[in-house]
Amino acid sequence: MTDFEKTRSLFYLPEGIVYLDGNSLGPLPLAAKERVARLMTDEWGELLIKGWNKAGWMMMPRKVGDRVGRLIGAPEGTVVMGDTLSIKVYQALASALELRPERKVILSDSGNFPSDLYMADGLIRSLGRSHELKIVEPEEVEAAIDETVGVLMLTEVDYRTGRLHDMKSLTKKAHDKGAIAVWDLAHSAGALPVDLTGADADFAVGCTYKYLNGGPGAPAFIYVAPRLADKVRPALSGWLGHETPFAFDLGYRPGGGIDRMRVGTPPILGLVALDAALDAWEGVDMADLRQQSIKLCDLFVAEVEKRCPMLTLGSPRNGEKRGSQISFLHREGYAIMQALIARGVIGDFRAPDAIRFGFTPLYIGERDVLKAVSILEDIMTNRLWDAAEYKQRALVT
Amino acid sequence: MTDFEKTRSLFYLPEGIVYLDGNSLGPLPLAAKERVARLMTDEWGELLIKGWNKAGWMMMPRKVGDRVGRLIGAPEGTVVMGDTLSIKVYQALASALELRPERKVILSDSGNFPSDLYMADGLIRSLGRSHELKIVEPEEVEAAIDETVGVLMLTEVDYRTGRLHDMKSLTKKAHDKGAIAVWDLAHSAGALPVDLTGADADFAVGCTYKYLNGGPGAPAFIYVAPRLADKVRPALSGWLGHETPFAFDLGYRPGGGIDRMRVGTPPILGLVALDAALDAWEGVDMADLRQQSIKLCDLFVAEVEKRCPMLTLGSPRNGEKRGSQISFLHREGYAIMQALIARGVIGDFRAPDAIRFGFTPLYIGERDVLKAVSILEDIMTNRLWDAAEYKQRALVT
Repeated sequence: MTDFEKTRSLFYLPEGIVYLDGNSLGPLPLAAKERVARLMTDEWGELLIKGWNKAGWMMMPRKVGDRVGRLIGAPEGTVVMGDTLSIKVYQALASALELRPERKVILSDSGNFPSDLYMADGLIRSLGRSHELKIVEPEEVEAAIDETVGVLMLTEVDYRTGRLHDMKSLTKKAHDKGAIAVWDLAHSAGALPVDLTGADADFAVGCTYKYLNGGPGAPAFIYVAPRLADKVRPALSGWLGHETPFAFDLGYRPGGGIDRMRVGTPPILGLVALDAALDAWEGVDMADLRQQSIKLCDLFVAEVEKRCPMLTLGSPRNGEKRGSQISFLHREGYAIMQALIARGVIGDFRAPDAIRFGFTPLYIGERDVLKAVSILEDIMTNRLWDAAEYKQRALVT
Repeated sequence: MTDFEKTRSLFYLPEGIVYLDGNSLGPLPLAAKERVARLMTDEWGELLIKGWNKAGWMMMPRKVGDRVGRLIGAPEGTVVMGDTLSIKVYQALASALELRPERKVILSDSGNFPSDLYMADGLIRSLGRSHELKIVEPEEVEAAIDETVGVLMLTEVDYRTGRLHDMKSLTKKAHDKGAIAVWDLAHSAGALPVDLTGADADFAVGCTYKYLNGGPGAPAFIYVAPRLADKVRPALSGWLGHETPFAFDLGYRPGGGIDRMRVGTPPILGLVALDAALDAWEGVDMADLRQQSIKLCDLFVAEVEKRCPMLTLGSPRNGEKRGSQISFLHREGYAIMQALIARGVIGDFRAPDAIRFGFTPLYIGERDVLKAVSILEDIMTNRLWDAAEYKQRALVT
C-alpha cells in the first residue's frame, strides 16, 4: 500500500492552508527547491557551457520524458519534454493530419481546453483552410466519429467538470473508422492511471505543472506511438529535432523516433525542477492513488451536498467517470472562491460558474477535505461571499 | 563611462577559468541565483497558485520583454518573452508571409543559424509547398532582394564568423522592394547596440541565454513593429495570446498588439532568472560596451595572429563589421578547443573547423584575453591538441 503520509512529507505546504488547487499548480516539492539550487550553483555556476554534456542537460528532455512515461503507460523512448502544452498540441495535430491526408475533419468537443481548439484553428489556417474543426458536445463524441474524421483530438479529463472520456473505447472507434487519436492528458497525468499503450493511443500531450508538481510554466510532454514515431513529420522542425544538430547542416533531416519532436534549446531550470518533483512518484502505486482519490472526492461531494444545498454538483457523481477533481456550480462562484481563498481554502474558478477543487492523495488527506467543507459551509450559510472585496476579478482566475 | 569592474562583480566566474563562451551560455549572475531561490520559497512555496496574480507571474513575459526591448531599440509594449527562439522564428515568419500573400519567396543566407532555416522549411511544408526558401551566400543577400521576395529572414550576426549584416540598409532595401524583414538577434542582443526602431525592422526574435545571461534554455523573445502588431495573425494561436484567456471561449480572438504572440503558460523559473540577469544592464551604456568589445576582440586577433600563425582568422578583421565574437579556423579545431577547455579557457567549436570565442565586456577584460592567448599559444606551439583524449566528440560541441 502506498504510504501517503510519506509522500505528503515531500512537499512544502504553507501552515493553515488547505490546498485544493494542485490540479492547476502543484505545490513545491522540497526536492525541487534543493535541485534547482544545485543547478544554479554547481552546474550553471561551475560547469557553465560544459553543463550541456557533463550535467546531462542535453539529454534531460528524454530522461524526464521517460519518467513521465512511466506514469502514463508509455514505454521508454516514446515521450519527450519541451515547450508548452499548446505547442505540443500543434505538433501532434500537424503530424496526425499528415498521416490521413485524404481526411479533412478534426473532431473535438466543447469540453476540450480552449487552447487546444485555438491551436487547431491556427493550424487549419496555415494549411489553407482545407480542414474543418468540428466541435460537438462531450457525450456526442462517440457517435460523431465517422469516416470523414482524420483526427480525433480530445482532452481525457474535462478541465471544468472532471468528466473522464473512455480513452480506450474512443481510440478503438477512431481506429475502426480510420482516424488518428490525439489525447491531451493535462488533467490526467498524475491524477489517475493512464495506459497509452493499452489504449493504443497514437499521440498524447500534457503539461506537468498540475498533478506532476513541476512548477509554474513547467515544460510539456509529447508521446508518439512507437509504430508512428519514425513516420511522422515534425511541423515545428527545430534544430534539436534534427538527426545531427551539431553538424549544423543547412537542410533538415528529422531525428529518429521521438527525438524529432524536440524543437529548440530545452528549458533546463524547468526541467530539473520537474525531474526532482517526479521523485515523489517513486513507490506510488497508481491503483492506490486512484482508490484514494475517488475516496477523497466522494467524501467531498457527500459532505458538500449535505451541508451546502445551494451548490450544485458540476462533476460526474460516479468516481469512475471523472478525474481527480470536483466542481460545484453557483452563479456567484467567483466571489465564493475568493471568500474561500481568504479563509485559506485554495481552489479556483472556471467561467462561467464553476468552483473547482483538485484532490491529490500525494499531499491531501481526509482531514483537509473535512476542513475545507466546514469553511465552505460557513461561507455559504452566512453568505460571507457577498462582500464587495470578493467580486473584483483578478487577471488570473 | 560604464564601470565594467562593477558589472564583473555581478557574476559568478569559477576560479582559474577564462570564460569566452558567453556567446553560447552566459555565466551565472549572482542576482539570478538569489531571485530563483526566492521564487521557489516565497512565491511558488508560499503563494502557490496565487503567484500568478500576486507575484506578477502572468505579466512577466511583457515586463521582461520591455527590459529586453530597451537593449534592442524596441519601445515599450513591443517585445514579449516565451518559448524558444525556433518557435519565435516560426511565429514571425508565418505572420510575415501573411502580410505579403502574393509573394512566394523567403530569402535567407547560408550564415543563418540552421534552426531558422529548418523552421522555415517546416512552415513551407505546412503551407502546402507554395513557398520557396532561397538561400544565398551572406555577401549576395543585398543583390538577391527583388520583387519576388516576400520575407527577408536573416540573423544579424553570423553564429560562426561573427560577420555583421547591415540591418538598416538591408531592411530598407527589403522595404523598397516590398518585402518584410525578419531579424534574428541571437548573437546581437546584449552583444552590440541594436536599434530596431531606427532600422524600421518588421519582426525580430532572439534568445536570452547568450549575452543576456538568462541561463540554460532561457526563454526567447519576439518583437513586432507597432505599425504591424494589430494586423498580424498569430499562427501559433495559444490561449495566452487570446483577447480574454480566462473567459475560456471556444473561438480564438487574438489579443491586442504584442500579446497575441504569447502562446502557452510562461516558463516562470526561466523568466525570473532572466529578469534578475537583466539587472546587470542597468547603467550600461551600449556605446561603451561596443567600444570595449571591439577593443577586446581586436587585441585577441592581433595577439593570436602574432603568436599562433597556424590559425587562420575566420571573422571580419574590421571590428565594425562583426559582432562580439572571434573565430579562428583550423582543421583540428575540435581537438584544439578541447585542449583549451582542459586548460581552463572555455570557448566552443563550430563545425567544420571553427574555434569560437565570445568577448563580453560585462565580465571579460584585457587580462583574460592575454591569458587565453598565452594558453592557446602553448597548445599550438607544442601541439598539445594532438592527444587522443581531445579528439573524442561529445554530444554538444
